[in-house]
Amino acid sequence: MFIHRHKVQFYETDLMGIVHHSNYLRFYEEARVAWAHQKGLIDYQKPGSASHFAVYETQVKHIKPTFFGDELEIEVQARSEGNRLIFQYRLRGRNGEVCSVCKTVHVPLGLDLKLLRLSAEIKTATESEQWTETWL
Amino acid sequence: MFIHRHKVQFYETDLMGIVHHSNYLRFYEEARVAWAHQKGLIDYQKPGSASHFAVYETQVKHIKPTFFGDELEIEVQARSEGNRLIFQYRLRGRNGEVCSVCKTVHVPLGLDLKLLRLSAEIKTATESEQWTETWL
Amino acid sequence: MFIHRHKVQFYETDLMGIVHHSNYLRFYEEARVAWAHQKGLIDYQKPGSASHFAVYETQVKHIKPTFFGDELEIEVQARSEGNRLIFQYRLRGRNGEVCSVCKTVHVPLGLDLKLLRLSAEIKTATESEQWTETWL
Amino acid sequence: MFIHRHKVQFYETDLMGIVHHSNYLRFYEEARVAWAHQKGLIDYQKPGSASHFAVYETQVKHIKPTFFGDELEIEVQARSEGNRLIFQYRLRGRNGEVCSVCKTVHVPLGLDLKLLRLSAEIKTATESEQWTETWL
Repeated sequence: MFIHRHKVQFYETDLMGIVHHSNYLRFYEEARVAWAHQKGLIDYQKPGSASHFAVYETQVKHIKPTFFGDELEIEVQARSEGNRLIFQYRLRGRNGEVCSVCKTVHVPLGLDLKLLRLSAEIKTATESEQWTETWL
Repeated sequence: MFIHRHKVQFYETDLMGIVHHSNYLRFYEEARVAWAHQKGLIDYQKPGSASHFAVYETQVKHIKPTFFGDELEIEVQARSEGNRLIFQYRLRGRNGEVCSVCKTVHVPLGLDLKLLRLSAEIKTATESEQWTETWL
Repeated sequence: MFIHRHKVQFYETDLMGIVHHSNYLRFYEEARVAWAHQKGLIDYQKPGSASHFAVYETQVKHIKPTFFGDELEIEVQARSEGNRLIFQYRLRGRNGEVCSVCKTVHVPLGLDLKLLRLSAEIKTATESEQWTETWL
Repeated sequence: MFIHRHKVQFYETDLMGIVHHSNYLRFYEEARVAWAHQKGLIDYQKPGSASHFAVYETQVKHIKPTFFGDELEIEVQARSEGNRLIFQYRLRGRNGEVCSVCKTVHVPLGLDLKLLRLSAEIKTATESEQWTETWL
């Protein structure tokens, strides 16, 4: 399974002393982009290729807080469904405990923000992916 | 109905030229905090009072993009359910069109991040609130 | 003098319980954009017009911390110098106390990130501006 | 010399297609924290230890833009001067080109945000550091 690592930064905390909840969507984006780049689906030299992963829906559950300096591990799974690309994520913090799970749904957009069809490359990439049990 | 306004800032955009999706959770937090402050449930002099609104779950749907300079209007509705506090939000952008809807679920935490019971003040505040149809 | 107001949000705080220093550059940008928009120099319908205010240098001094819920007031002054556009800012927090001062230097860029000449409109706009003593 | 690496994320870009200038202060903080942690001066289990590095002044120069996916390298140098701790940074982007330089000045604060004396540990740590030419 694809795993992305993120070290929690000071600027990601809030006055409760924990990571602010909005930053989890950034960590999940990091993990998704890393997955897509590794699959050859995002080209950093053509940043517009990221628009094929426009965010349609997000759902995040927070089970335990995470803290400054934590070394997070984010597991990623992907699948396509019609014209949609779906990811799920499981984020582990201290002692490997699951701190958050997430599901995001994406649609491909052109640079003009118009809806496109899901590319054959993306469909192929997700077909070879495992999607085990549902995490959220 | 409670409405919060937010003007989209340059630093909230991304390279697709639109507001980055993680910022919507920040706009929804702004709206929630403004609602709670108006109800007397958050005291800026006691920032720890915000921990009574710890985020347990978020769900956001993106219908249309929003842009630099847009004057967003965010409608807020709240209700309590057992020990949980639930909000829904409807975000309008240009021409009053609905661009995003959201639901967030909260649990009250103490400053030690331990679960508390939902306070009577919060329960009372939500009882007098309207919760019309479900937006998401 | 042009004054911009910003209410400190929960997501702008860090684990020290104060506003994270990186956010001041965002507040100063808000103030600069509001000034430029009021002068007719930034058109939200043409977001590329903001690239005429590309950031070349920033300098920020932090005198006192600011806190969740604070109603900040940011004074702005602008002047041009050759091909550069220079702003200074003074940020007041609780009880009107000066909490931070800042200076930023800008150069006009085209959408291709190439250097342009400072437009006549910007020069004219700054000529009518006051620049009293230096704050930083 | 201490070098910190940061991969530019999608959420760090703005509508000009480049990294938003406020994020550089975050990258420089990452580098400073990594330096301090390696020296034993910040303990992630005691996040309050970060308050010994409260930001008093920042100065950033932007020479070239950086982009989505760039692998940044940030060189860090530190020295103390009286009660102040001073860092300088040099950030390299594509092809190893210097894209930004920065200087930050820090003062030690207690958890009550009151000024402390610079600890002997910090003074010792900086004495063994090199500070070659001045970058900004």
